[in-house]
Amino acid sequence: MEDLPIHVDYLLSGATIITMNPVREILENASIAIKGSKIAWIGDTKDVTRQFDAKHSLDCTGKLIMPGLINVHGHWAMTLFRGMVDDITLEGWLAKVWKAEAAYMTEENVIAGAQLAMMEMIRSGTTCAADMYWHYRASTEAARRAGFRMINGPSFAEIEGFKKYRHTNQEIATAYLDEYKDIPLVHPCVQAHSAYTTNPELLQIVSQIAAERNLLFITHASESVGELDMVRQKYGKRPLEVLHEHGLLGKHTLLAHCVHLTDQEIQLLAETGTSVAHCPASNLKLSSGIARVSDMLKAGVNVAIGTDGAASNNDLDLFHEAQLAALMQKGVSGDPTVLPAEKVVFMLTIDAAKAVGLQDLIGSLEVGKLADLVVIDMDSPNLTPHYNLYSHLVYAISPHDVCHTMVNGQMLMQDRQLLNLDEPAVKAKVCQIAKQIQAM
Amino acid sequence: MEDLPIHVDYLLSGATIITMNPVREILENASIAIKGSKIAWIGDTKDVTRQFDAKHSLDCTGKLIMPGLINVHGHWAMTLFRGMVDDITLEGWLAKVWKAEAAYMTEENVIAGAQLAMMEMIRSGTTCAADMYWHYRASTEAARRAGFRMINGPSFAEIEGFKKYRHTNQEIATAYLDEYKDIPLVHPCVQAHSAYTTNPELLQIVSQIAAERNLLFITHASESVGELDMVRQKYGKRPLEVLHEHGLLGKHTLLAHCVHLTDQEIQLLAETGTSVAHCPASNLKLSSGIARVSDMLKAGVNVAIGTDGAASNNDLDLFHEAQLAALMQKGVSGDPTVLPAEKVVFMLTIDAAKAVGLQDLIGSLEVGKLADLVVIDMDSPNLTPHYNLYSHLVYAISPHDVCHTMVNGQMLMQDRQLLNLDEPAVKAKVCQIAKQIQAM
Repeated sequence: MEDLPIHVDYLLSGATIITMNPVREILENASIAIKGSKIAWIGDTKDVTRQFDAKHSLDCTGKLIMPGLINVHGHWAMTLFRGMVDDITLEGWLAKVWKAEAAYMTEENVIAGAQLAMMEMIRSGTTCAADMYWHYRASTEAARRAGFRMINGPSFAEIEGFKKYRHTNQEIATAYLDEYKDIPLVHPCVQAHSAYTTNPELLQIVSQIAAERNLLFITHASESVGELDMVRQKYGKRPLEVLHEHGLLGKHTLLAHCVHLTDQEIQLLAETGTSVAHCPASNLKLSSGIARVSDMLKAGVNVAIGTDGAASNNDLDLFHEAQLAALMQKGVSGDPTVLPAEKVVFMLTIDAAKAVGLQDLIGSLEVGKLADLVVIDMDSPNLTPHYNLYSHLVYAISPHDVCHTMVNGQMLMQDRQLLNLDEPAVKAKVCQIAKQIQAM
Repeated sequence: MEDLPIHVDYLLSGATIITMNPVREILENASIAIKGSKIAWIGDTKDVTRQFDAKHSLDCTGKLIMPGLINVHGHWAMTLFRGMVDDITLEGWLAKVWKAEAAYMTEENVIAGAQLAMMEMIRSGTTCAADMYWHYRASTEAARRAGFRMINGPSFAEIEGFKKYRHTNQEIATAYLDEYKDIPLVHPCVQAHSAYTTNPELLQIVSQIAAERNLLFITHASESVGELDMVRQKYGKRPLEVLHEHGLLGKHTLLAHCVHLTDQEIQLLAETGTSVAHCPASNLKLSSGIARVSDMLKAGVNVAIGTDGAASNNDLDLFHEAQLAALMQKGVSGDPTVLPAEKVVFMLTIDAAKAVGLQDLIGSLEVGKLADLVVIDMDSPNLTPHYNLYSHLVYAISPHDVCHTMVNGQMLMQDRQLLNLDEPAVKAKVCQIAKQIQAM
C-alpha cells in the first residue's frame, strides 16, 4: 500500500460502484479517489479512509457511482427548436428547421443552444457527447468553458442556404483538427452530414482527412426511406455501399441511425467493425422506423445510443433513451429477453466509448482512466425497492436521481446544482432567441 | 361579481392554465380559487386579487396549472416487485410474480406497496388512478388516508394459489360496493381479472353487479397472443366476443391493453362506447405487442393511458407513458402526424375521466368540478424554450418538473414535498418486504 497516492482531489466513499471494467465488477461499500483528471484508486471503503488526504470528501452512502453516460449522437444547439416542430412530416419538419437554422444560427446562438444542451445532459448523467452542427468551433469552446467532454469536428455538407457556414472548406476544417488535437476535453473527429447532402468528391476529401489523421468519422446513414431514395438517385446505390466504396466503413466509423439495413449490410458493419449510434426517440417521432438493434448485436455490431437533437426527441435524457431502446426491441421482436438491462448499461458507457474510439480513456471506472462519473441517489420512490441495479438504471430512473456529475476530475454538478454553467442566464438567452424564431 | 365566494381555501395565481374545458381554453396569467373540494373560480389574475380572501395563496408565476393526470390502469402494490422480473418471458414472469404474490401479499404489504405507488404517482402529476389487486379494501383505505383519488373494487378471478383471497366471493364484493358508494375520493367499480382467469358463471355475476349498480367495469382484454389462445381454449371465442355476450361491453366498460384487435373488434368498441386503457411500456416490455391506438382513435374509440404495474413498466410516471404512446404510434404507422401532443394530453385528463365515468367530476379545470390539479414548473432546462405547451407535456417533461399536486382541494405535494405520506417510513417498509421476497 506504500505507493498509494496520499494527496488526492476527491474522495467519494461508501457507495455501490458499477465499474463497467472488463470483469463487470460491482463493488459494494466502495470508494473512489480522484487526482487531477484521473481515477487514482478504487476499492473497499474500509481500506481507504486513512490512506488519502482528500481536498474534497463526499459521503456517498446509499448512492451509486457509475461511469458517466456517453451520448454518441446529437445536434446540441437544436435545443433552440425544442417543441417548435412536432407531429408533422419529415418534409414539413425540414422546411421549418432549415429555415430557422439558416436565419438564426449565428455563433452566439449556437453557443446558447449548446450550453442549454450541456445543462440538460449534465443533469441527466451524461459526461461526454458527440455534436454535429454548424459553428463547431464555437460549440467546442463552449464545451471547454463548461468543462464538458465533447466529440466534435467539421461536418461536411452542401445544403442549400448554408453555404455561408463554409462547411465544405477544407482549410478551415484542418485548421480546427490541428488546433484541437491535444486539447483536454475535446476529441476531434471528421464528419459528413450524409451521403445525400455531400458528393463523391467531398466524401473522398473526408475519407482522406480521416485516414491521414487516424480520426473518428461520423455520418448519418440509412435513417429513412426518403434518404435511401435520394442516395439511390444521386449515386445509384444504397448509403452503406457509397460509404464503403469511399473507405468510410471501419473501426473508426460511427454511423448515426442505421434504421433501414439489410442482413448483408448488418454483416458488413460487423465485418468492418463499424459502430452504430441508435437514436430510437427521434426515429419514432419522425416515423423513420425502428432500427434492428438486436439483430445488429447478434451479428457482433457495436451499438451505442444517442439522443439526436432536441427538435426531434425532445429531451436529451440518455437514460430515458436507453429505456426506449430496450422496450422497442422487446416489443418488435416478440422476445422479452432481447436487449437486457445490463447490456443497455454497457451500450451507454463502455460500448459507447468504443464507438467514439475513447475506450482507453473513458467508459469504465478503472485506475488510470479519466474521472468521468455520475453519482445517483438510489433513494427515490421510483428506485425503491432494490433487486437489480441495471434494471433500475434502464427501466425506472428519472433524471433527478442523478445528484453529482464529474467530468475529467472536475465536479460539474454537485447536489443537483450546476457549478460551471450559469443556468438562469442561459435559459433567459435561449428564450429570447426562441421569441425571435417564433416571430419568423 | 357580487356572488363570488370571498372566502376560499386556496388561491393559485399568475399561472398559465390548461383547462381542458370543452373549448380547450389555455388561459395566460390566470388564477384558480379552490373552496373545500371544488374549484370555485378560474379567470384572469388581475380580476382576482381583491376578490378572494384565501387561507393559502400560492404565487404560480411562470408555472403551468393543469388537471391532474388520471392513470386508468395499474396494480399499485406491484411496486414491491419493481425490478425483480425483467428481460424474461411472460411465462417466467408470471411464475416468479405469482409465487411472490401468493407468498407475500398480506394486507400489510399491499398497503406498503400501494403507498409507494401513490408517492410516485403524486410526484409525477397523477391525482387519480385505477387499481386492480388483492386486498382491495386495504388499498382503498390507504388511498383515503393519503387523500388520493382511487378507482377500485372487487376483481373477480380464479387463479391457482389465490383462493384464500376470496376474490370470487360475491358477498364480500357487494359489501365493499355498498360501503364505499358515497365515500369521498373512492370511486367503486367492479372488475374481472380477465376472461381466461374467470368463467361464464363469474362473468354473469360481474355483469349483473355492474348493471344493477350502474358501475364501471374493468378487465384485461386482448393483451397477448397467449391470452387469445387460452380464451379460445376455454370459450372457443375471442376475448371481446366473450365479454360482449355477457353484456360487458359498453359505456361503463374499460378494457386494459387491447393490443390484439381486428378491424371488426375496433368497430365493436366504437359502437358500444367501450373505453380502452392503453399501457405501452408494459406491452413492449413483456413483448405483448403494440396496440392499434391511432386506428382506435380514428374509429371513435375513447382511449386513455395506464402505467400497468411497476413489475412490468417499471415506473409509474404517466407523462413518460404518454410520450411512449405518442412515439410508438408514429413509429409503427409511418405517419408522424398521428397522435399529436394535444390529443395525448386529452387522453391523460378529460378522455381518461370519461374512460372511468368521472367526466362530470374531474378531468378538466372548470368551476364546480373537483379540485384535482397539478402545478408544473416550466423553468427547467428540459422545458426550455417555450413554443408549445402540449409538446413539452408529452415530449420533454420530467417528473421532477411537477412541483405541487392537489387532490379534492387538498395539497398532497407542495414544493415537491409530500405532505400526507411518510416517505422514509414507506420506503423502509418496502425495502424490508423486498428483502424477504428476494430471499424466497
